Amino acid sequence: MNFNLNDTIAAISTPPGEGGIAVIRISGADSFRITENIFYKDNAGIHSFKLSDFKSHTVHFGFISDGESIIDESLVTIFRNPNSYTGEDVIEISSHGGNFIARKILKLILIKGARLAEPGEFTKRAFLNGKMDLAQAEAVADLISSQTESAHSSSIKQLEGKLSELVHGIKDEIINVTSLIELELDFAEEDLEFVKKDEVRNKIEKIISRLESVIDTYIQGKVIREGVRLVIAGRPNSGKSSLFNYLLKTNRAIVSDIAGTTRDFIEERLIIGGIVFNLTDTAGLRSSDDHIESEGIKRSFSKIDEADLIIYLIDSSAGENEAKEEIKYAEKNFDQKKTIPVFSKSDLGKINKGKTNEGKTNEGNTTHSDTSQRKDIINISLLKDESIESLKDAMLKKLSLENITSDKSGEIIITNLRHRICLENTVSSLKNAAATLDKGMTGEFLSVDLRNSLSQLGEITGEVTNDDILNNIFRNFCIGK
Amino acid sequence: MNFNLNDTIAAISTPPGEGGIAVIRISGADSFRITENIFYKDNAGIHSFKLSDFKSHTVHFGFISDGESIIDESLVTIFRNPNSYTGEDVIEISSHGGNFIARKILKLILIKGARLAEPGEFTKRAFLNGKMDLAQAEAVADLISSQTESAHSSSIKQLEGKLSELVHGIKDEIINVTSLIELELDFAEEDLEFVKKDEVRNKIEKIISRLESVIDTYIQGKVIREGVRLVIAGRPNSGKSSLFNYLLKTNRAIVSDIAGTTRDFIEERLIIGGIVFNLTDTAGLRSSDDHIESEGIKRSFSKIDEADLIIYLIDSSAGENEAKEEIKYAEKNFDQKKTIPVFSKSDLGKINKGKTNEGKTNEGNTTHSDTSQRKDIINISLLKDESIESLKDAMLKKLSLENITSDKSGEIIITNLRHRICLENTVSSLKNAAATLDKGMTGEFLSVDLRNSLSQLGEITGEVTNDDILNNIFRNFCIGK
Repeated sequence: MNFNLNDTIAAISTPPGEGGIAVIRISGADSFRITENIFYKDNAGIHSFKLSDFKSHTVHFGFISDGESIIDESLVTIFRNPNSYTGEDVIEISSHGGNFIARKILKLILIKGARLAEPGEFTKRAFLNGKMDLAQAEAVADLISSQTESAHSSSIKQLEGKLSELVHGIKDEIINVTSLIELELDFAEEDLEFVKKDEVRNKIEKIISRLESVIDTYIQGKVIREGVRLVIAGRPNSGKSSLFNYLLKTNRAIVSDIAGTTRDFIEERLIIGGIVFNLTDTAGLRSSDDHIESEGIKRSFSKIDEADLIIYLIDSSAGENEAKEEIKYAEKNFDQKKTIPVFSKSDLGKINKGKTNEGKTNEGNTTHSDTSQRKDIINISLLKDESIESLKDAMLKKLSLENITSDKSGEIIITNLRHRICLENTVSSLKNAAATLDKGMTGEFLSVDLRNSLSQLGEITGEVTNDDILNNIFRNFCIGK
Repeated sequence: MNFNLNDTIAAISTPPGEGGIAVIRISGADSFRITENIFYKDNAGIHSFKLSDFKSHTVHFGFISDGESIIDESLVTIFRNPNSYTGEDVIEISSHGGNFIARKILKLILIKGARLAEPGEFTKRAFLNGKMDLAQAEAVADLISSQTESAHSSSIKQLEGKLSELVHGIKDEIINVTSLIELELDFAEEDLEFVKKDEVRNKIEKIISRLESVIDTYIQGKVIREGVRLVIAGRPNSGKSSLFNYLLKTNRAIVSDIAGTTRDFIEERLIIGGIVFNLTDTAGLRSSDDHIESEGIKRSFSKIDEADLIIYLIDSSAGENEAKEEIKYAEKNFDQKKTIPVFSKSDLGKINKGKTNEGKTNEGNTTHSDTSQRKDIINISLLKDESIESLKDAMLKKLSLENITSDKSGEIIITNLRHRICLENTVSSLKNAAATLDKGMTGEFLSVDLRNSLSQLGEITGEVTNDDILNNIFRNFCIGK
């Protein structure tokens, strides 16, 4: 990633696709000069705008031209350094929507001397120019990608600086402890065991437990941020595509009563209880001679490996023994912490009468009361909404997400792995400090541990940072932000 | 569609999806009041902006709040009536990108009294308020949806008013003829056969032929605007998915040497020679006992019916007789004007050695020189780029599109069906006028025909219009424009 703050960067800041408006953003010392080169008052492309004559935060109507022909009628907005998003001179060109036109304008801007912005580079410049701290910069990306109330609420809090406040609060406490010790050090040249040992020990413990309770919110945070990867798995013809379609309320996957219908896996998005579920319908699991089906099954297993949650469908019409074997299979092959076994076709006969083309009867329709009454197994029928609702409840419960969206307490939830790691490192340094204290080592050692913890905590807001950290953060941004 | 210009409308004007910026647009008399209700100078939501204090075309930074919590940090731009896109008071809120946040802000605006804008309603208001004519308004939608150089160039010309100029030019000529006749009428109370009959006849002919040459550009125009619907069809295992993947340069469709691999059809977009091709890979055509495959084949035929262009793949390894039968089948079942027969696997052996899992040999690999040397049939090999290039050339030639993007003559191309119909109606009225003249009927009749043609021509720019026409036009717009 280029760290040069001297060049001028440009990118399309609106999402790709059709819409009324597209915005192309330019930031840097050359923004005005570049725009003046392509922006005209008339559609003959003769009278160019002298943008430097106008005030910051003003908007101007004109024509974008490459000198040969008009590319678009546009609005140009001027932001003067330092009163802009990045803190630099910024121009925003608001053109007609659509990919083609915005790209054409961007290309022209690059020809006139701007460089294509890296993902997140506008926000990185905002951070480097002191317009926001690093946790706030990260909140910008989270805010944009938020798809649910819970994700929005956690990221806007972070953007407003709530996480930064928490970090600063804890930092103050650590500094307080540190100065207690360092004060002692100044006065005691012969390294006396200092008197306030218990007080320091208690304070460190309190800070550790505060940090640990923040770290504990991360599991919820990850789901809020990324959604749940949910895979529907099971033997061929266990009803996976039917359940997939039912949950989505569409006819997305071809459904039949013939085993091995689905081959290419299909993915769609669904929101349940304020949480995003990324649903994957897979090819049925069996050893197959069919070359194409085998390829599909290979892809199924790789999806199962990546999943946060697996619904394992068991055809309840296959008989008691088969059902038991299926449960054994699922227990053996999948992580129980993330697998929900489900009996499908619990109203068998009804469904199949409606869906079977060839009017087959289902001879295997036994009652198998033993197996199907296991408490952790859900019986579903796609004809009955209640059974689906209890499946949805089970999905949220399995991941401890039942009450996540009703939490309006204003408590910070850590959604970012980097923050968790910084907090964990801080805890680890504080634990070292406690051990140092217990071993009766000198105050200098204790002081080093505490200073380490401060530096690790400071990484969250970017007071302590380096190129690698910044590159890691901003390469996950979208282009144009 | 609501024609009430008194209410205030709002919509998200940027495309859905993730991006740095989303823009929510509000237009109407209440725009300022509504925004003042949700826009604050501080993130405590205490000091609201008095937007009416500020000049038009200025931008303001602040916080969007629902009164309870902050939704976003945003920029608000003010446009005062009549100096705005719609000609009304307009506010544009530039929020952080992402669907969720923009929808939340829009919802708040609707709660505060705005109505959700219909598709194209901002542009419709621009038209009704005299900011642009109807052909220009339509160009806005075309400009946004343009995906290629040719589509962009034709729609920007139309937005700049080039089509409107052409229409006005022809109108002037018709008016000129009309006044010639009406002048005559004024002077000749006893309906004298007027002297300038030949001159009028010639002028009408000239206008007709001018109009017809404009109408003729429509076939190209349609492709520029909508792209070509291209279906790859053929027997199972003729190599459809391989060609599909090859053209897209991806591994999108599962490929195997087993007939009937593809079931759900797959669609992707491709640009060849500046023209958009919407590619569909289909299930192989045969009568199948396989229920799922049959459903896939049914869907294939419906795709073939809708296609502008069909590549009919024939497996060149299947032998001379089969190949002949295949050609017969294609000739019988598909429209020859839009079908390109293609021999696949022309380098058979090489390809199959690489792709076959089971190491089968291909015994049917005869030379069948007769059939494969038919000039209109292309032999392709996915190992040789040249043969694919000649297929691409053939695709463009089949639709007479070889030179479409190199046409820089500045000539208007009609891309819009409505315009074609208006022009055809104009031609038809002018032909009536010529017939009237030939039959020696009175000048009044001739005058009626000419006035009809003027009114039909006037529909293009919207000088003559009605609710139905407007509804038809604007309902095809995207929301937010």
